[in-house]
Amino acid sequence: MIYFNCDYTEGAHPKIMEKMLATNLEQTPGYGEDTYCDQAKELILQACQAPQAQVYFLVGGTQVNFTIIRSALRAHQGVISPETGHINVHETGAVEATGHKILALPCGVEGKLTAAQVEKTAAEHFAGSMPPIHMVQPKMVYISQPTENGAIYSKAELEALHEVCRKWGLYLFADGARMGYGLTARGSDATLADMARLCDAFTIGGTKCGALFGEAAVLTNPDLQQDFGYAIKQNGGMLAKGRLLGLQFLVLFQDGLYYNICEKANRLAYEIADACKENGFTEYAPSPTNQQFFIFPDAALQELEKKYHFSFWEKVDEGHTAVRICTSWATKEENVRALIEDIRTAGAKL
Amino acid sequence: MIYFNCDYTEGAHPKIMEKMLATNLEQTPGYGEDTYCDQAKELILQACQAPQAQVYFLVGGTQVNFTIIRSALRAHQGVISPETGHINVHETGAVEATGHKILALPCGVEGKLTAAQVEKTAAEHFAGSMPPIHMVQPKMVYISQPTENGAIYSKAELEALHEVCRKWGLYLFADGARMGYGLTARGSDATLADMARLCDAFTIGGTKCGALFGEAAVLTNPDLQQDFGYAIKQNGGMLAKGRLLGLQFLVLFQDGLYYNICEKANRLAYEIADACKENGFTEYAPSPTNQQFFIFPDAALQELEKKYHFSFWEKVDEGHTAVRICTSWATKEENVRALIEDIRTAGAKL
Amino acid sequence: MIYFNCDYTEGAHPKIMEKMLATNLEQTPGYGEDTYCDQAKELILQACQAPQAQVYFLVGGTQVNFTIIRSALRAHQGVISPETGHINVHETGAVEATGHKILALPCGVEGKLTAAQVEKTAAEHFAGSMPPIHMVQPKMVYISQPTENGAIYSKAELEALHEVCRKWGLYLFADGARMGYGLTARGSDATLADMARLCDAFTIGGTKCGALFGEAAVLTNPDLQQDFGYAIKQNGGMLAKGRLLGLQFLVLFQDGLYYNICEKANRLAYEIADACKENGFTEYAPSPTNQQFFIFPDAALQELEKKYHFSFWEKVDEGHTAVRICTSWATKEENVRALIEDIRTAGAKL
Amino acid sequence: MIYFNCDYTEGAHPKIMEKMLATNLEQTPGYGEDTYCDQAKELILQACQAPQAQVYFLVGGTQVNFTIIRSALRAHQGVISPETGHINVHETGAVEATGHKILALPCGVEGKLTAAQVEKTAAEHFAGSMPPIHMVQPKMVYISQPTENGAIYSKAELEALHEVCRKWGLYLFADGARMGYGLTARGSDATLADMARLCDAFTIGGTKCGALFGEAAVLTNPDLQQDFGYAIKQNGGMLAKGRLLGLQFLVLFQDGLYYNICEKANRLAYEIADACKENGFTEYAPSPTNQQFFIFPDAALQELEKKYHFSFWEKVDEGHTAVRICTSWATKEENVRALIEDIRTAGAKL
Repeated sequence: MIYFNCDYTEGAHPKIMEKMLATNLEQTPGYGEDTYCDQAKELILQACQAPQAQVYFLVGGTQVNFTIIRSALRAHQGVISPETGHINVHETGAVEATGHKILALPCGVEGKLTAAQVEKTAAEHFAGSMPPIHMVQPKMVYISQPTENGAIYSKAELEALHEVCRKWGLYLFADGARMGYGLTARGSDATLADMARLCDAFTIGGTKCGALFGEAAVLTNPDLQQDFGYAIKQNGGMLAKGRLLGLQFLVLFQDGLYYNICEKANRLAYEIADACKENGFTEYAPSPTNQQFFIFPDAALQELEKKYHFSFWEKVDEGHTAVRICTSWATKEENVRALIEDIRTAGAKL
Repeated sequence: MIYFNCDYTEGAHPKIMEKMLATNLEQTPGYGEDTYCDQAKELILQACQAPQAQVYFLVGGTQVNFTIIRSALRAHQGVISPETGHINVHETGAVEATGHKILALPCGVEGKLTAAQVEKTAAEHFAGSMPPIHMVQPKMVYISQPTENGAIYSKAELEALHEVCRKWGLYLFADGARMGYGLTARGSDATLADMARLCDAFTIGGTKCGALFGEAAVLTNPDLQQDFGYAIKQNGGMLAKGRLLGLQFLVLFQDGLYYNICEKANRLAYEIADACKENGFTEYAPSPTNQQFFIFPDAALQELEKKYHFSFWEKVDEGHTAVRICTSWATKEENVRALIEDIRTAGAKL
Repeated sequence: MIYFNCDYTEGAHPKIMEKMLATNLEQTPGYGEDTYCDQAKELILQACQAPQAQVYFLVGGTQVNFTIIRSALRAHQGVISPETGHINVHETGAVEATGHKILALPCGVEGKLTAAQVEKTAAEHFAGSMPPIHMVQPKMVYISQPTENGAIYSKAELEALHEVCRKWGLYLFADGARMGYGLTARGSDATLADMARLCDAFTIGGTKCGALFGEAAVLTNPDLQQDFGYAIKQNGGMLAKGRLLGLQFLVLFQDGLYYNICEKANRLAYEIADACKENGFTEYAPSPTNQQFFIFPDAALQELEKKYHFSFWEKVDEGHTAVRICTSWATKEENVRALIEDIRTAGAKL
Repeated sequence: MIYFNCDYTEGAHPKIMEKMLATNLEQTPGYGEDTYCDQAKELILQACQAPQAQVYFLVGGTQVNFTIIRSALRAHQGVISPETGHINVHETGAVEATGHKILALPCGVEGKLTAAQVEKTAAEHFAGSMPPIHMVQPKMVYISQPTENGAIYSKAELEALHEVCRKWGLYLFADGARMGYGLTARGSDATLADMARLCDAFTIGGTKCGALFGEAAVLTNPDLQQDFGYAIKQNGGMLAKGRLLGLQFLVLFQDGLYYNICEKANRLAYEIADACKENGFTEYAPSPTNQQFFIFPDAALQELEKKYHFSFWEKVDEGHTAVRICTSWATKEENVRALIEDIRTAGAKL
């Protein structure tokens, strides 16, 4: 069985494993106070062109999301999110479990929020006809770059979100669990330096982009940096052997590895998408990144699933199902060839 | 200025004030362990025909809602609510502040949930294609009787909700902040005994139905009764001079006072609604209870608001606004006459 | 049976009942946005000589405590409290339920914290040998004025606490559930103006000092004032008919009523204490306020408890029990006379 | 510089690194639904002789502690812990951040709770003279095996704790972050099977016992198993590449590796302790496990710390300091020899 269901089916990029092995018996201080973490932070700050920012390493994605949100918000404040945002759907209510409401806004199939939506929500709260204290105060905007459905925000879209957030005193936070695939996507014009310039906080995902695990949190707003170390510890995100996180990001941000492996995954994803389209299958959501979403007749899907794992996404109608097809830094080209061949065969039967 | 904006503009029904005065210098135990509370609970249980139920008195509506919800749910569980539910909109995120996600479902202008909606949500979670543990587990259904928009659930609708809740192991909780107006509404066929039979928990509002303050929580499900006293105290709902709550509900549930005063308020509300309709104003949402929702041209509204306070509800379009017009146990008939006259005048100018 | 067990066995001072009755059918805006609340706040600010402060009214004591603490602290911060502090013992973990650790420090029988204790705790955290992020950050000091055991802080003690709090960036918060008894206690030299000058936040209790219910929160630190209205609502402390709180404090702070009734209660308490001492019973904790703590042989106590209710405080040893004897604004002089007589009789049998 | 300050200064046991490398490019399902996790769970259950138990893998120690506690307790319930318990001191208030009070009890230098202490606390709450609902309800007892100070509970002590917990309906939870060192300690008579028989929940630490990271939670009480998967996810403890946890515990529990490496660490610790005692240094706390606690004159300590890192534990008096000296599975015998030599030299100067 070949897995195309997600981008965390393998371990880590071989260069990471190599580094871990080479340093395995070294003694270092715990809790991320080692030189590998220092070096990795330095590399990330350089990539972000943001010397005033602070970088922190946490283990997982849900964890880093709720830790940042809880640490930033006061009890009566909430976070605006697209309805399909990961925090709103697939984190078992972790944000609410820290006491904060998610103010979910409708979004199209791309899973993106617009500056106009944020403006409307903030204006209704702070300048509306109702006394605001009876409602949750919006204080943060959460987006994903790329989104749950693989779309990316352009630099112009991010700038518009940045502006509206400044206007209403909101923090802009971008979940970058798949940041590498976004940065290297076809048509992407927002760099890490743009993210650092436009967001108060964002993450750079390791787990889905070559590491065994690990997410880097980049906090550019000094208000969010204060006491963030306490927050990491309190929320269970502080790894005793913290160097493991530093080591991995050090390898990923040396010699452009993070970019190279993600770009390759994107390229393979485009090939699969092209094969789907050319053979008569409908795109469910347009994506320039490593996740592709296509609608298959159930019979065709059953046939393909004898050999491949995809992610179920939605029952579109009686007889059709949308699935996610994922590549990653670890995807083998030969498996992509085989899949394309089988998509062709399936298409021929339509 | 005459207030029709809400049903808590005056103090308490004179009979309540009388009882408070008469007992003011009596010495009783605190925290609701007095005979007035005992007597009031007894009367309520009789009205509910539910000897196995337990009655508790808390001070306010937001408080009783989040106390019941927090006490009933485990950390990973959430509560299904109509989008317009009071807990979802006007309680400053109190439920989320206790750690629980509100699973908000779309609802029409009446603000009601259907059994089919609950079935769909529960089935998708417990029997869907995604592993459920990544999502909040639905465990309770929150409705209001009457709803935020004045509508009432029929006995048949409540029975259907009860059934689907049983099927999926969900608690059914009805917020009865305006229960009195619902029980005595035109067309209402659900009695307190029906509420007790069909809900695991519900409240009987005092604040908006004749009392100075106070909500009775009726917990019919023994699982919810366990340790509820701790929950009241922890969440700030335990009144030191608890007898004040008992005294008020005692007066309200003697000789049908609760019903009589609410029924009269409903009748006055119908008169206002009839005047609106007869004079050409559009109903925003149909309501058989003491809250009426009408759309006025802004000019007409400005004229009326020189003399009357209404509640702003929604800007319907350029030039029209929906407002809430409320009566209560304390509404004076002469004020209703005056309002009707002025609606007539306003209608004549259309 | 005559109750001396606590100071909330009766209703409200007759002048308050009178005012409530007189205004009962007036229409006012809800949620404390009425003129009675405005007037009461004005009177309190005058008494505090603190024009920059803000006054808020909440219903109950546990509620106002956890609302202030939750609103002031970030998630990783805790509150220093004497071990016997009300928040640490008798509020069912309400503060922890909002996510914050209470850093309980040992205290003598008077229930007071010293500046030296706070200095030690803060210095160990912020300037100790352990990295602080693995421990809860102290950010607030909670004291009661008077304490749970009836003692009062002198002005000098408060000034010392104020100094150490300034030094380490801690908020000083005084729980004044029985403030009136403290302000008028024998030997008390700290006025409301001192409280306002030295504390970032404190409360002025109504429930135990003449009102039906209600606590005034005085927030002198502008940082704590920000968005406090949201906090009140979210935590269930916002009364729909908010004027009831305003009306009561208005009456209490007109013509010195608050002081007069509490001073009288203190005087009656001293008479009881003197009788206990003169007749051979041991003081459990020295108190210049309305709560007196004495140790009785169990036989004597059984005899007294045929006629009077006291509060059990502690089993001191096989054969002796400490109880709390409480007076209040409502205590009848004739009951005090009777009790003194019976204490005399009991003493004679020793 | 040689580190004896803690047991997490190196990476993982070479056999673990080997296994990770060998399986690195295999494709498996995420979130722990892979065969390596299944196999590891099976091995642990065999070691525990507890087929009815469930095993779960989480990333870190703080995380697994608060996840188990939050999942087990209702909002008004708290956890009894020794004052020096890790959850009470060194987890930045993580348990309170989930809403639960820690009921900290005094304990000697060994850091152990006795059954008598638990009995007293429970009896005072459930059968005392105060109405219990004003106080946090004890519902769980937290111990560490071995304790923070390296001591171990005997089987008889655990049985007594088990009995008292049964009597009062409390869960018994043992934090086994260093379980391996406890199981193989000199004089230890409690096996994993005893732990499983006597505790409702306990953990088996990987991080400090040979793994890169990872803690196994063994839940023997079916009530605690229900929905625990949701809890792991919600609290950020679910690793996307969950097999990494399974792989590590699989290696540790094959061929007794877990026991062998911990026993060796204990043996080296005893040699250091013997050297300390023989050369005139005072034991701070007696410990049969890999953590040793000794008091040094400051001058001697300064000399030793030129070459070795220890953990500061406490300033004992002017001129003396207690430190922790730690060995682990990774400690090199040559470093132990060198340290012993230097302790001898330091002792000679006393």
